[in-house]
Amino acid sequence: MKVAILGFGTVGVGVYEMLEKCPGLEPGPVLVRKGKEDKPFKVSSIEQIVNDPEVGAVAEVMGGIEPANSYVAAALKAGKHVVTSNKALVAAHGIELAELARASGVSFLFSAACGGGVPFLHNLAIAAQSDEILFLGGILNGTTNFMLDAMQSEGKDYGDVLKQAQALGYAEADPTADVSGLDALRKIMLACAVAYNKLPVDGFSREGIESITAADVADFQAKGLTCRLITSGGPAGESVYAYVEPVLFPASSPECSVVKNFNMAKYNGQNAGAIVLMGQGAGRYPTASAVVRDLCGLGSLEMLRPECVKVRADNAGCAHAYYVRVDADKAGRLPFAESKADGASVRGVTAPMAVPEMHAIANEIRQEGGSIFFAAMEA
Amino acid sequence: MKVAILGFGTVGVGVYEMLEKCPGLEPGPVLVRKGKEDKPFKVSSIEQIVNDPEVGAVAEVMGGIEPANSYVAAALKAGKHVVTSNKALVAAHGIELAELARASGVSFLFSAACGGGVPFLHNLAIAAQSDEILFLGGILNGTTNFMLDAMQSEGKDYGDVLKQAQALGYAEADPTADVSGLDALRKIMLACAVAYNKLPVDGFSREGIESITAADVADFQAKGLTCRLITSGGPAGESVYAYVEPVLFPASSPECSVVKNFNMAKYNGQNAGAIVLMGQGAGRYPTASAVVRDLCGLGSLEMLRPECVKVRADNAGCAHAYYVRVDADKAGRLPFAESKADGASVRGVTAPMAVPEMHAIANEIRQEGGSIFFAAMEA
Repeated sequence: MKVAILGFGTVGVGVYEMLEKCPGLEPGPVLVRKGKEDKPFKVSSIEQIVNDPEVGAVAEVMGGIEPANSYVAAALKAGKHVVTSNKALVAAHGIELAELARASGVSFLFSAACGGGVPFLHNLAIAAQSDEILFLGGILNGTTNFMLDAMQSEGKDYGDVLKQAQALGYAEADPTADVSGLDALRKIMLACAVAYNKLPVDGFSREGIESITAADVADFQAKGLTCRLITSGGPAGESVYAYVEPVLFPASSPECSVVKNFNMAKYNGQNAGAIVLMGQGAGRYPTASAVVRDLCGLGSLEMLRPECVKVRADNAGCAHAYYVRVDADKAGRLPFAESKADGASVRGVTAPMAVPEMHAIANEIRQEGGSIFFAAMEA
Repeated sequence: MKVAILGFGTVGVGVYEMLEKCPGLEPGPVLVRKGKEDKPFKVSSIEQIVNDPEVGAVAEVMGGIEPANSYVAAALKAGKHVVTSNKALVAAHGIELAELARASGVSFLFSAACGGGVPFLHNLAIAAQSDEILFLGGILNGTTNFMLDAMQSEGKDYGDVLKQAQALGYAEADPTADVSGLDALRKIMLACAVAYNKLPVDGFSREGIESITAADVADFQAKGLTCRLITSGGPAGESVYAYVEPVLFPASSPECSVVKNFNMAKYNGQNAGAIVLMGQGAGRYPTASAVVRDLCGLGSLEMLRPECVKVRADNAGCAHAYYVRVDADKAGRLPFAESKADGASVRGVTAPMAVPEMHAIANEIRQEGGSIFFAAMEA
């Protein structure tokens, strides 16, 4: 089967190369920007792909919501399978696109949108058919894991590791989506949709790593703790919970062995128990391998089922004790169980607090111009 | 679809319970020993299952090679899909049974035979369709991992942790298959067949954990090292390598975070990079969940492909430095790079040695009545 590719950047080139070697599949036309058609296989009009009867499937790796959404919809309506690595697209329009795919009797798969080379969504989709998923999440953003690991292993400051991540190509010129936790949040949105048939679209709690300092690292490392940016999802009554925040782990935790830009995805099945998947969450070939894996499994799996609906996330039932560093004059807002002064700040650990409460207090303090870092204590 | 179950022990009961709740599947007749038919759904003759037109699939969880092999063959010939947890059966007769399945146009799947709840073989089979698998293996035996973990975290001796493992139901009354590495070896046989279309049937190197003592643990723990029983497989020219041996890891290795009776399966894809899967490798519901997962995916995947052939494993190209404790009068047989006397023994680390050479020297020394413990040093 001929597979057209939308976008010829880092991942697109990887998909093209893998398709050249994959039995049963071959690369078809590749959509590039007008004026960039420097090879016979490159085209600049989506119609040339949608109307090509030889194209059986489309790999969308161009990113962004538009025009990717219109192109994917057109391909699905024309009866082409679609595989995408585009988490923003699936988070925004996945349910509608899956409906188009069903109407045309084709597949709409997006393993590469969550975990890169780590086959998280694929395994979740299969597990959800026969098991009850009690929890899902983990370390789903490699850029921030690289940065936290570098801060903790080399004692560097936030600004330095961000520059290092950008120099290595792990972080974009505008790193906001990664460091703010938005990228990880989009991934947990997709994972909840696959596991629970519920796509949370608002009501989130999201804290990235932008507030962490070398002094914070030195303080919790002295207590034997390691920080990771953790994404969590699970059932919450008629809805799901879904949030992103830094978490501190004791040294024996498997999370501490996830270094550099690796990912660690987890789910807990009522029957299977805790299942952990680790690997490279980004990069040309890991991400391309997830795209091609989906292309090899067309027709065998539905990731977004007909019963999937949009919901508002409900994190009210989730609670943790939090490690907090906050301006001394704001410390009274936090229910510290223990704390100590540290210059103009107070550091300590709170009594257990609901996740939305902790995030709301932090937002409030920041809106007043105050400074705060917080991380959940892994129980 | 009605699923008949062969065997109603730990796993069989779990499969029955899960099928009762699984959409699209329901439990059919259950094969038990003659005289044990105490419920209407229990039967004692395989013909009642093979000739039942309502039975679409058979879950074989009785264990042992015969009569399981004859029963599975009869079911496949009768056009029933077969899913099995029986690693000894697949290692001995898998290629022939897969051929019968193809001839009948049905599936023959065995995820539960390797890794219990950890979806290792399923992911390997999918990855092998589109990626080159450079390496596979890991911690594939939960019983020995429990024992090693207990020796290392509690300072107990081998005999004590074996009794503890038996009391907890992790080890059989006859624990030989686990502690000798045979169970782990059978799993790597299956993994090689799935990933490389080559089922190694002899030429193995296999060392279990029977020689480890509390003194060995104390010595390498003082060096910051942790022991795990590791199974390794990979391509070796026209054949594959496949061996089992204890390995010592530095504290930062992910292997050290695999505690109790957990498993950690790994593969390294040319494109996907290193992928690690962790979870419970045994137990009623984890193993049953793997059986039911296969039953939900019938027809979508072939684990043993037509080109799969039997080969002799070739470990000659695999080499490691080894930590060794050996009787002082035999120490001259080992190419120690550094060593020291320890009572009547010598302890040290060898220069890099081929895996079969190390195993052969150990076997020779034991045949002469000598005592030796060895473990590869993780590079």
